[in-house]
Amino acid sequence: MPVEDYTEIEYSVADGIATIVLDREARMNAFTGRMCDELVAACDAIDADDAVRVLVITGRGRAFCAGADLGEGGSTFDDRGRGKAERYGEIDGVGRDRGGVVSLRLAALRVPVIAAVNGPAVGVGATMTLPMDVRIAGASARFGFVFARRGIVPEAASSWFLPRVVGISQAMEWAMTGRVFGAQEALEGRLVSRVVPDEELLDTAYALAREVAENTSSVSVALTRQMMWSMLSASSPWEAHALDSRAVVELGRDADAAEGVTAFLEKRPPAFPLRRTRDHVDLAPGWPQRP
Amino acid sequence: MPVEDYTEIEYSVADGIATIVLDREARMNAFTGRMCDELVAACDAIDADDAVRVLVITGRGRAFCAGADLGEGGSTFDDRGRGKAERYGEIDGVGRDRGGVVSLRLAALRVPVIAAVNGPAVGVGATMTLPMDVRIAGASARFGFVFARRGIVPEAASSWFLPRVVGISQAMEWAMTGRVFGAQEALEGRLVSRVVPDEELLDTAYALAREVAENTSSVSVALTRQMMWSMLSASSPWEAHALDSRAVVELGRDADAAEGVTAFLEKRPPAFPLRRTRDHVDLAPGWPQRP
Amino acid sequence: MPVEDYTEIEYSVADGIATIVLDREARMNAFTGRMCDELVAACDAIDADDAVRVLVITGRGRAFCAGADLGEGGSTFDDRGRGKAERYGEIDGVGRDRGGVVSLRLAALRVPVIAAVNGPAVGVGATMTLPMDVRIAGASARFGFVFARRGIVPEAASSWFLPRVVGISQAMEWAMTGRVFGAQEALEGRLVSRVVPDEELLDTAYALAREVAENTSSVSVALTRQMMWSMLSASSPWEAHALDSRAVVELGRDADAAEGVTAFLEKRPPAFPLRRTRDHVDLAPGWPQRP
Repeated sequence: MPVEDYTEIEYSVADGIATIVLDREARMNAFTGRMCDELVAACDAIDADDAVRVLVITGRGRAFCAGADLGEGGSTFDDRGRGKAERYGEIDGVGRDRGGVVSLRLAALRVPVIAAVNGPAVGVGATMTLPMDVRIAGASARFGFVFARRGIVPEAASSWFLPRVVGISQAMEWAMTGRVFGAQEALEGRLVSRVVPDEELLDTAYALAREVAENTSSVSVALTRQMMWSMLSASSPWEAHALDSRAVVELGRDADAAEGVTAFLEKRPPAFPLRRTRDHVDLAPGWPQRP
Repeated sequence: MPVEDYTEIEYSVADGIATIVLDREARMNAFTGRMCDELVAACDAIDADDAVRVLVITGRGRAFCAGADLGEGGSTFDDRGRGKAERYGEIDGVGRDRGGVVSLRLAALRVPVIAAVNGPAVGVGATMTLPMDVRIAGASARFGFVFARRGIVPEAASSWFLPRVVGISQAMEWAMTGRVFGAQEALEGRLVSRVVPDEELLDTAYALAREVAENTSSVSVALTRQMMWSMLSASSPWEAHALDSRAVVELGRDADAAEGVTAFLEKRPPAFPLRRTRDHVDLAPGWPQRP
Repeated sequence: MPVEDYTEIEYSVADGIATIVLDREARMNAFTGRMCDELVAACDAIDADDAVRVLVITGRGRAFCAGADLGEGGSTFDDRGRGKAERYGEIDGVGRDRGGVVSLRLAALRVPVIAAVNGPAVGVGATMTLPMDVRIAGASARFGFVFARRGIVPEAASSWFLPRVVGISQAMEWAMTGRVFGAQEALEGRLVSRVVPDEELLDTAYALAREVAENTSSVSVALTRQMMWSMLSASSPWEAHALDSRAVVELGRDADAAEGVTAFLEKRPPAFPLRRTRDHVDLAPGWPQRP
């Protein structure tokens, strides 16, 4: 899907930083099947584009993402009589949950992802942020893992992600009550790394993004992201030891390591020559793998 | 074991909230084989009773649970010459530790558990709280993973639970020193979610319990609890994706999802018709499974 | 390697507490192959010496460990043309990363390890602290997981350890930026348990070490350390339940349990007779095991 076809997100790239704006302002950026497709397409574009070093995701207007669009009322979550979402295949005989399609695609992205949460992030609007690396909240951000209040269950693989991001006790408190809570509770519960005034939210997110783009090797960051997330699934640190022993040898012989050390010793910004789309792409396992 | 036979715990149910009071006040509610049996029986009763939406556990008098009863002095932990606890079977050829019997039974419970820690929670009195979802401390609460001071090791599967609740570094600091520490240290170390004045402890616990009971689907909460805890053991988020893809389809077609969305849109409290003892009980894997 | 042969660390034992000082002050204690060998040798000596109850590691002078010695400039991480490090064997056909050799050896140590971080701990100087149990920072401590700025990847199995110590989001923020950060950010991110004035750093570390040495059974602590760390790799709490059920029976019949309970009841310091080099050494699995 070419970028000019997107109608529910806005995608742009500048100075090494890609931005996705969830863009259904009249519906508080509520999640749809089409938004899912566009997010997946944008992730594919990012992975193929060396000009992108990091991704920032935010929402248009006063909301980040209000969750599933409830425009169909009580039958919102009833899939019968609708066209099946064949695009992503089935898993164990049922169609894949589209929140999970997005979460697992984001988890596998080869650049870091920063969520700039500018208002309500509820339901899939909250769970889609969990495979993002850093969540920054504006003061008016609100979060809610509201599934138990809607008669369904946490989706988007959030039963796996949420306890790993905030701990099992905090995850259960939020999921069992289904409460909507503010930025300060999100900070205390370690769901977000910081809370800033709304008018400073994007500046804060972009400053962090630039810290990545201006100082680091794109190959190093791509491999680091794959290693860190995939090692959450590793049964033993020996898996990490085997992987990083090989990676340090292979990268250590290559041009980014020479440039990184030389630039540091010369106290100047580095200019890394390698490209994450081409160099050492097979070194770390893709993540997450389908079992 | 019928409730009228309990002698070491007190069990009651009101307004959808079950309460267990550890009830050996003269011994600071020290843990015994009989208390283990009564806790297991109460859990079985809760799982079979749709009137119970959430469980609060606290202690009688000034203590939560002072740990194993040391009434036999230096031979307290020597099992020789005693009747074997056949009730729970053996595991790998030895009798199952009774602290672990309680912890694993609580972990498998289909309603959330809130610990209201009203005083010392030491040894098994501390470790039994780890599979509970939320721990709230009164100001006079104290905790101790004192096993290394008694010449034994952390029990009740706490070597698995404690690092997942508070992180490996905090777990090791408490376990390697065996120190007894106060509510504030417990809060800073994320063992408890909040500290309140002693006289507000039960009110705080019941307010949280009501937040669950009044707003959520019992089926949703039962499945959520099983998913969150069991996914701590999952090797990949694809396991969660497979599970929640199916659960969202099945629940999405059923009456609680219709009621949850409709009540939300109508801004009224929900009245969920499904019953956790009957509906969708096989959707999530029981947890924890014996390997 | 006998202790008198150490040239890059200083090793001493007093009052049950071993101390390792990283000792290349002119190079800010930068890590070398020889330092790796000496650290491994010291760990072996500790595990064989019942006089050691706990280990404190710190750095000489103003730094903890500045990371890999960059004395070879741009070719620092290029292994070609150098003698291979045969000592530790290969893993999956490549020589083992020496940072990982140290981290995995520290992880398997049978006494707790306290890091007293007295200045910059960067690169392998940061990652080598992750399998230590507690990190205490002096006010002038600084940390950096700088690998992406050098064109390599996090080593020393840190892609496994770091997310388990500080959570995946904090781990990714530090690894994707490669920033160097101060003691306060380390505290807020839960990398260190506390920050103290520089002049109180060693006193604080030794006070914690004495808390272990004076109050606990060496057998209990050795088993506890192996259990806690190895259960991070366990797929289910039933593994812990099987292990601690056996351990409580075997230790419960032995002399440390009798002494621990008796000393507690008599309100006197315990004098545990068992020895961790001899008693119950096979009870817990060695950790980490090579897969």
